[in-house]
Amino acid sequence: MLEKTHAPLTLTKEEMQQYGYKVVDLIVSHFGDLSSAKIVSLADRKQMDELLQQPIPNKPSSPEKVLQDVVDNVLTNVDFLTHPKFYSFVPSPSNFISAMADAIASGFNIFSGGWSNSPAAAELEIVVINWFLEMFHFPVVEGGGILTSGGSMANLTALTTARRIKCKNDYSKATIYLSDQAHSSNIKAIRVLGFKEQQVRIIPTDMEFKMSLNKLKNAIAKDKIEGNKPFCIIASAGTTNTGTVDPLEEIADICAKENLWMHVDGAYGGAAILADKGKTYLRGIERADSLTVDPHKWFFQPYEIGCLLVKNHKWLSKTFSEKPVYLRDIEGNESEINFYDHGIQLTRGFRALKLYMSIKTFGLDQFKEAIQSGISLTENVEDFLRKSSKWEVVSPATLAIINFRCNPIEQNLTEKELDALNQYISKEILNSHSAVLVTTILQDQVVLRMCLINPRTTLDDIKDTLNSCEKFATTFIKNMTHESI
Amino acid sequence: MLEKTHAPLTLTKEEMQQYGYKVVDLIVSHFGDLSSAKIVSLADRKQMDELLQQPIPNKPSSPEKVLQDVVDNVLTNVDFLTHPKFYSFVPSPSNFISAMADAIASGFNIFSGGWSNSPAAAELEIVVINWFLEMFHFPVVEGGGILTSGGSMANLTALTTARRIKCKNDYSKATIYLSDQAHSSNIKAIRVLGFKEQQVRIIPTDMEFKMSLNKLKNAIAKDKIEGNKPFCIIASAGTTNTGTVDPLEEIADICAKENLWMHVDGAYGGAAILADKGKTYLRGIERADSLTVDPHKWFFQPYEIGCLLVKNHKWLSKTFSEKPVYLRDIEGNESEINFYDHGIQLTRGFRALKLYMSIKTFGLDQFKEAIQSGISLTENVEDFLRKSSKWEVVSPATLAIINFRCNPIEQNLTEKELDALNQYISKEILNSHSAVLVTTILQDQVVLRMCLINPRTTLDDIKDTLNSCEKFATTFIKNMTHESI
Ligand SMILES: Cc1ncc(COP(=O)(O)O)c(C=O)c1O
Ligand SMILES: Cc1ncc(COP(=O)(O)O)c(C=O)c1O
Repeated sequence: MLEKTHAPLTLTKEEMQQYGYKVVDLIVSHFGDLSSAKIVSLADRKQMDELLQQPIPNKPSSPEKVLQDVVDNVLTNVDFLTHPKFYSFVPSPSNFISAMADAIASGFNIFSGGWSNSPAAAELEIVVINWFLEMFHFPVVEGGGILTSGGSMANLTALTTARRIKCKNDYSKATIYLSDQAHSSNIKAIRVLGFKEQQVRIIPTDMEFKMSLNKLKNAIAKDKIEGNKPFCIIASAGTTNTGTVDPLEEIADICAKENLWMHVDGAYGGAAILADKGKTYLRGIERADSLTVDPHKWFFQPYEIGCLLVKNHKWLSKTFSEKPVYLRDIEGNESEINFYDHGIQLTRGFRALKLYMSIKTFGLDQFKEAIQSGISLTENVEDFLRKSSKWEVVSPATLAIINFRCNPIEQNLTEKELDALNQYISKEILNSHSAVLVTTILQDQVVLRMCLINPRTTLDDIKDTLNSCEKFATTFIKNMTHESI
Repeated sequence: MLEKTHAPLTLTKEEMQQYGYKVVDLIVSHFGDLSSAKIVSLADRKQMDELLQQPIPNKPSSPEKVLQDVVDNVLTNVDFLTHPKFYSFVPSPSNFISAMADAIASGFNIFSGGWSNSPAAAELEIVVINWFLEMFHFPVVEGGGILTSGGSMANLTALTTARRIKCKNDYSKATIYLSDQAHSSNIKAIRVLGFKEQQVRIIPTDMEFKMSLNKLKNAIAKDKIEGNKPFCIIASAGTTNTGTVDPLEEIADICAKENLWMHVDGAYGGAAILADKGKTYLRGIERADSLTVDPHKWFFQPYEIGCLLVKNHKWLSKTFSEKPVYLRDIEGNESEINFYDHGIQLTRGFRALKLYMSIKTFGLDQFKEAIQSGISLTENVEDFLRKSSKWEVVSPATLAIINFRCNPIEQNLTEKELDALNQYISKEILNSHSAVLVTTILQDQVVLRMCLINPRTTLDDIKDTLNSCEKFATTFIKNMTHESI
């Protein structure tokens, strides 16, 4: 019985320290050797079931053994979205300091729901929200915001607030507008909120993937004639597909004229505000009523951290506070904030810590440099592709996203063949485990898409991948010719 | 320029390792010396502003300096909900292994949204969900679930699903039932979903804080007569105030008879299923259509991890998937699951890892022991209080929660005096920084409430705190007498 001297679910200090150092070594070697990590797993459910399904264990196991199992069987079967050759979706380059901040937040298990539970956690959330308000030229005293689990929750929180402030209690006729390139999380949020399909207007985009202003105006006018109540436009500031920013100034004008809520989904593109070129793209973003940005994307934070900013912090407490009315006004932006009264979560982890510690440690200049380098790199890739007779740019470098396809001029392939060719290239690249490069559909074409926000990604990495792509293309075309003979 | 050899936002391996070890040492000493930690902070906004408000820094700082600042100024101004004398709200005892698992999840930045991004992360989520399904006697093949940021999101996800499945597209007349002791996150969810106040029935509770079945039946009958469409009952399995479990079997019978969705909010109390006594309390829980449990409460996990279980996993994809209908049926519980199609979040951190690693390492038996010990400890506290002439039990030990007040028999205090006395005790205990013990209101009385789920809390800790309480009571009574002279 001697060994069982401690309470359930505890380890001795020595055990914890040893274990903790091992975990740190693991993480350090991950960050240190990122480019040599296995970047992608293609395992299916059956393989994973065989490897990992198991009855719930009643008895303890050696901590080291469990850790080693995770290293061997779990960490080998995940994609590394931090890898320099992870070009797809929105990669998440992350950084080491923030990962350690997450360890502290989790290790100390800091509850960031109410002020009284964690004054410093609430305060740091206020601090980083203020930094964002300033960055986006939102009013710092009147404005406010909240950190969320990600962009989806930030959009849901924004739209809940928009409805509460604009529609009060009757929203049976309320209508909402967003483009066909808007992120699906907006539609999901609209559904959760209980809006019916007939209250949602999907506005087509133009040849450059921007929301068509003409079509938007027509839709609003038609709704008004029909007795509907337009209340909100969702503009995208960096669509996920192409990085395109909707015409923010013009949309803001429409919102002002029609008294509509302007929500900007800058989950992906918002961070570009820190780069000169980005500022130009994002002109008008400061006119939004609410703005989603996603620090776990282009602000280099590990999952999960999203952020919603609003022009007036009282809108959030009006929407989410369960407190009696007479208490609300006391709670200005100069007094204690209970973030559970500003959003959906009650219990909340200490998300602000990682943003705070990483910005303090690296300084904002390094963030700017990293964001700028992603934009430039993408432009360089565009140049490179345009100079080649094998590649065609379908959507040019925009906020570090580029869409292109393999289209060797000399082959004169049909659209159908091009679709098949590019699909094949993506599949083979994945199968080769050398990079993650997947397709999307743009204007009915299958295209390859790169999102180049990882400061560790170099032009050489990309050339290397494109080189492999070309080899796969050659194989594909050879086989195709054979078949058509 | 020599020192600037690495890319922005990176450190050398040596720097990372040193820093990481420091972070581990910090966390280890926190877990090692929990009872000597400063348990509570009473700082106000002004103090925190002075300490922590600052403009966004452009230049880097030494990582160690930033870390030390956090240790000195942030970690000294948060409550420790892991502390053995943190008796209030729902404490979160947590455990070291899970904190390290969070570090791994964050360090490797594993995206747990879609299967293809992280097969092993999706699989481990399936594994732990299956463990829960089994624990609660839900069907393992048909059933399903999802991990969320906490109980609030689990309840929101559940009610979104309930509405989708029960009301289809018309919910203008749908009505929903919950008790006046149900957790506020349910009301918040109902509002987010867009239900109007007149669609919500708050059912009074009986003397034991259970939902009154008679009142519930009356409300449903009345609604039907008035042409409303009852669709869902929310039962609490462990209310936050008193730990009370609503009559689950009887509510299940009503749901069966009336064809209503039965949602059980077991965010707090669900874990008691692992204790013999808890099983008795929770009889009928297996009949729920959806069940919220909150591993970051009584399953000893650090924030954030909540869990929703459902009887039929297809309900979740039907509610949240944006996929075309013809694809949905392929996705059985034997094929790959994209958890972003089963809930609100798209990007999701790897929450399953900590639950998995801690259960594997400690074994379920230790969890059972820890849960059982909380229940027993609370019963011992009840015994102790009942034997004293100074204390009165207001709500007896129920699933590790007990409510009581200081009421020295010989003093014959009025209700108003008793309220003031107990409020005073709580305030002084907080001011003394010796424990966190706050009041709640039960049947119009101000009472002290303890939630004793921390396996590190001993009866001696509690006697010690009660002892301090008695001293404060003496002071209060002395002053009171003086004033009334
Ligand atoms: C434009 C946009 N909005 C919203 C989201 C959703 O954010 P999250 O994945 O953090 O929920 C994304 C994710 O890619 C996005 O690109
Ligand atoms: C019964 C109950 N339901 C729901 C919640 C909300 O859970 P969370 O704080 O994780 O959002 C709580 C929190 O205390 C609770 O006690």
